[in-house]
Amino acid sequence: VNRMIALDWGTSSLRAALLDAHGAVLDTFSSSDGILQVPPGGFPSVFASAVRRWEPEAGTLCLASGMVGSRQGWLEAPYCECPTGFAELGQRLAWVDDAPLGVRLGIVPGLCTDPAGVPDVMRGEETQVFGALDLLGLDSAVIVLPGTHSKWVQVQRSRIQRFATFMTGECYALLRRHSILARTLPEDDGALDEDAFARGVAHAREAGSLLHGAFSVRTLALFDRLSAEALPSYLSGLVIGEELRTQTLPTGTTPLVVIGADALTLRYRLALQSLGVTVMTIGAEAGWRGLSTIARSLKDPHDH
Amino acid sequence: VNRMIALDWGTSSLRAALLDAHGAVLDTFSSSDGILQVPPGGFPSVFASAVRRWEPEAGTLCLASGMVGSRQGWLEAPYCECPTGFAELGQRLAWVDDAPLGVRLGIVPGLCTDPAGVPDVMRGEETQVFGALDLLGLDSAVIVLPGTHSKWVQVQRSRIQRFATFMTGECYALLRRHSILARTLPEDDGALDEDAFARGVAHAREAGSLLHGAFSVRTLALFDRLSAEALPSYLSGLVIGEELRTQTLPTGTTPLVVIGADALTLRYRLALQSLGVTVMTIGAEAGWRGLSTIARSLKDPHDH
Repeated sequence: VNRMIALDWGTSSLRAALLDAHGAVLDTFSSSDGILQVPPGGFPSVFASAVRRWEPEAGTLCLASGMVGSRQGWLEAPYCECPTGFAELGQRLAWVDDAPLGVRLGIVPGLCTDPAGVPDVMRGEETQVFGALDLLGLDSAVIVLPGTHSKWVQVQRSRIQRFATFMTGECYALLRRHSILARTLPEDDGALDEDAFARGVAHAREAGSLLHGAFSVRTLALFDRLSAEALPSYLSGLVIGEELRTQTLPTGTTPLVVIGADALTLRYRLALQSLGVTVMTIGAEAGWRGLSTIARSLKDPHDH
Repeated sequence: VNRMIALDWGTSSLRAALLDAHGAVLDTFSSSDGILQVPPGGFPSVFASAVRRWEPEAGTLCLASGMVGSRQGWLEAPYCECPTGFAELGQRLAWVDDAPLGVRLGIVPGLCTDPAGVPDVMRGEETQVFGALDLLGLDSAVIVLPGTHSKWVQVQRSRIQRFATFMTGECYALLRRHSILARTLPEDDGALDEDAFARGVAHAREAGSLLHGAFSVRTLALFDRLSAEALPSYLSGLVIGEELRTQTLPTGTTPLVVIGADALTLRYRLALQSLGVTVMTIGAEAGWRGLSTIARSLKDPHDH
């Protein structure tokens, strides 16, 4: 393929990258035009204003992943059911008719899994997972994508077998800003206090549930056992520790890979190290790699 | 003792009752003058306006329990450490000097417990617990006080041995009103849907953590497996089920008592029944009984 444009278009942000024929990033762009900010019928113009800067030729391939393919997005790209391999993503792209600027625009499907009758879903993370596998040369791994809604993804034989979502980042924000604990915590999170963070991770395991463990933020402050400045790090340890508490962590040769920005992957690395698990980390390049790899997999770029 | 006035003065409400010499409730009053609503220095006047209606004689005994005895309240009544029996509450009342209207006003101490270096606290619930034990003629029980911050209290040989707080009601409200789930839930909770509630209780046990389980509210709606109207009941089952998941429920002859308003104790009764546990329930009379029993325990009403 020639140059292509990759888009990671989520709920609250739009990120785009111009990639060369080898998938190398030539330029990036980001804005707060997440799908919730796009007015009805506004997807074509938001898209055009994001990619016009790169003067794409007619027929340029653009691939987008994330909530842009949800029912609330531009065009619904139905979920692939797990287990799902990389090939299915390219085969089941949803193509936008008459895309702006004469480009070809495909939207990557999300994944769904349904253990025991309760479904779980992802959109966007699947692209990062396959990109990370490609970058790291792995065909089996446990992959963690921390965030507002963290995902734990089990990959075997290059296929996503199953995954689970944890509302970790969102619950941190709810407890930190909207609960009774907000009165005790300082206005700013401040720098990470690694000791307080580790104490939170440890208490999460003892408490057995965040409903109980979170109350200790209040009581440790009440009895002056933890300084106010240390409380945000402690609460962060509690919620991440709660997420880890429920995991069967990989043993032996299966690697654990954490995908995300440094500030967040650092916390997972620390928490997992305290449990004796070594991790690999990888950043946003996983998503661009996933999209360029899908592009290369399209046998004939015109056969849609 | 003669007539007395009992007060349950918490964070967001003030409830008072006029009790006869036998502890029977003659009249009640309630307002939203919780301690957070009282301006600095305003406790005497709020108290006076609440109890003046009963024209108390000088020297009338008034006993108050709840957050009024906290550092943010009228007068700090230091915590009793667990294990604590009923007698300690009366012995460690904090007496208000020069109480309004010439009455005698004592504030009941809270309890603290400190398993494994992480403290837990209660204020007000201890009075309800001892009142319930007295009303039901029990000296051992597991007692649950559901609410914004639910308490699970272990009583043996008439002493509170230990207890634990769960931010259940608060987390329900946070998820229901402030999280991404708020977009999916209807504006009103509506009537309890017992089937959806039971499904939530069951999924809480399978999910292993509310961080994961709560996401199913979104996915069950997304795949049309649960109607929007049923979602508040399902979420309620999830959070109450999460609280129950971590409990070692009593077996054999130890009774499980739930103290609270009917709408809430019904949910705990249903959830516990689904786990094969039978419960007793008791209402607000437990608090008034606790305060009147403390009053009777004061050997000489003037020896403070």
